[in-house]
Amino acid sequence: MTLTLVSIGLSSHMDLSLRAIEAARRADVVYAETYTMRLETTPRLLGETIGRPVQPLTRGLMEEEADELLREAENRDVAILVGGDALTATTHISLVIDAARRGVPVKIVHGGSIFTAVAETGLSLYKFGRTVTVPLPEKGPVDTVIRTLRDNREQGLHTLILLDLDEPKKRYLTINQAIERLEETGEFSMDTLLVAVARLGSENQVIKADTAMNLKSQDFGDPSHTIVAPGRLHFMEEEALKVLAGCPPELLSGRKVQGEVDTLIEKYGVGCRRVLRELKPNPLPKTINKARVDGMLDHVNRYLDDAEYYRGENSPVALTSVAYAEGVLDALKLLGLVEFEW
Amino acid sequence: MTLTLVSIGLSSHMDLSLRAIEAARRADVVYAETYTMRLETTPRLLGETIGRPVQPLTRGLMEEEADELLREAENRDVAILVGGDALTATTHISLVIDAARRGVPVKIVHGGSIFTAVAETGLSLYKFGRTVTVPLPEKGPVDTVIRTLRDNREQGLHTLILLDLDEPKKRYLTINQAIERLEETGEFSMDTLLVAVARLGSENQVIKADTAMNLKSQDFGDPSHTIVAPGRLHFMEEEALKVLAGCPPELLSGRKVQGEVDTLIEKYGVGCRRVLRELKPNPLPKTINKARVDGMLDHVNRYLDDAEYYRGENSPVALTSVAYAEGVLDALKLLGLVEFEW
Repeated sequence: MTLTLVSIGLSSHMDLSLRAIEAARRADVVYAETYTMRLETTPRLLGETIGRPVQPLTRGLMEEEADELLREAENRDVAILVGGDALTATTHISLVIDAARRGVPVKIVHGGSIFTAVAETGLSLYKFGRTVTVPLPEKGPVDTVIRTLRDNREQGLHTLILLDLDEPKKRYLTINQAIERLEETGEFSMDTLLVAVARLGSENQVIKADTAMNLKSQDFGDPSHTIVAPGRLHFMEEEALKVLAGCPPELLSGRKVQGEVDTLIEKYGVGCRRVLRELKPNPLPKTINKARVDGMLDHVNRYLDDAEYYRGENSPVALTSVAYAEGVLDALKLLGLVEFEW
Repeated sequence: MTLTLVSIGLSSHMDLSLRAIEAARRADVVYAETYTMRLETTPRLLGETIGRPVQPLTRGLMEEEADELLREAENRDVAILVGGDALTATTHISLVIDAARRGVPVKIVHGGSIFTAVAETGLSLYKFGRTVTVPLPEKGPVDTVIRTLRDNREQGLHTLILLDLDEPKKRYLTINQAIERLEETGEFSMDTLLVAVARLGSENQVIKADTAMNLKSQDFGDPSHTIVAPGRLHFMEEEALKVLAGCPPELLSGRKVQGEVDTLIEKYGVGCRRVLRELKPNPLPKTINKARVDGMLDHVNRYLDDAEYYRGENSPVALTSVAYAEGVLDALKLLGLVEFEW
């Protein structure tokens, strides 16, 4: 028999597709997994829409429960309704792998997801990097969020920041709480441009771009909440943020998303150029002639040219060139052949 | 009045959600934009599903046509059916911005998309980097694809590779053609593990993981085709690729996704350590004492330690440390104070 994961989509039973309804109707038994995300619906409303009773999976999809479901799917057609697009959650992929291992055929019916619906912010889906979740305070620190934001910014990419929830306890991390958690690390600038997204896909959705500081004090109402951290912005994305997300224009003018690597290249490069201008030659030992030292300074100059040439190409050549140049200059200084200050 | 972009979803009219059908029914006029992706449906079938006539936008959504639609939307409720999730295509975002600028209220109804449905490969959606499209040969080179693959691999991220199409001419880039285009650059290894994805979300979808070389010669049938290039793999993702995508296990055992930066750090680091072991001191000039040169070699050693410590932390410190160490060693050599070969 078959296990079918049926995506509910973004928000409620209204987001069920005809394919989803048909798949659920054909199954011998229909469950709803409502732990992974918050939905504006209930098993009863889902059941009325499908025209079949829908049983809530009260204990989620943890190992034991998954095992029971898979045993059932060996003998009957089992459909499980899940929020969003079915395989965005790791637990669902894990269930599918287990089913395939047991020889239970698996079918997925797809639906809308926050992963693509965030395009309503006006940010291009092509330019998103790794996605990350801000955990509830008791579930762990936000180090990974900080690191992911840094890595994506390094590449100029946007970051989708999902906010954790504990559905049985009806606890949903808000945009405000998530920003506070980031602020508390001391490694997150409150001037960062963010896009606050609330209840996306429902009738009363809100999308608002502003600084972390300004968003922190606003009330975005009921869950679920999400945040997007924009990376480098194309002209059209800037327009979209203004028009679709009410972004204050002054936050965009002259905004420069510069990664750590760019900053280092700039810093080292400027420093080396200045040193080349200012350095004073000391009297040389007899065995070292002036042409040799001048040749090395030329060598440094060429490496700095390379660094500038390759900069912005997102190539490690720029960074290694400038660090190498610094090494050569430092060696000349440490040997007392030239004098300068960094 | 209103402009509503109504997502059709992944494949056909069966993927329309109840919300989508309702939104289209309420509009005064319903169009279908069928240029952006290939769908297994027609305006007639969409119309029958919705219960309203659906007019194909025969000239797509280029500027002039967009202008006409927006003028119409100023006076009537206009719905446009679009494949996938509505705002994955740049032209659709552009239309929405123009509408908002004219004061035409815009509504988006979301649906399934290849961007999240690729989770059926078993690869975690959280770990995808920038998305890229392989253009049809006449539309341009594949440099951007090569660069994006490199950048994502550098971060250990997966890459969704969309394949270009020319719907009016019924031309659809196949997996085979796309791999050939990459091969022709000479900058793409045919040993690369890829996941071929054909007709995802339809009844006869195919998902197959193998090397680029092996996939190039297989026939994946009708469009549309997509490719995913896996980055670093979590244990569960490896399992999923085997079970869900038929990946030959030998392609996964010992697979090492190493970015360019890791490779450089390793290469430079090993080289510098060897030089430190093998270098021969030359007689020193009177003004340079041995302790100073030994101190500098210690200095190099500490920088190499730093490089090893920070390696894998995805931090530029590792790369700059090792390049700096190389600069110091080269300076000592160029000054004739030590002898070694790189």
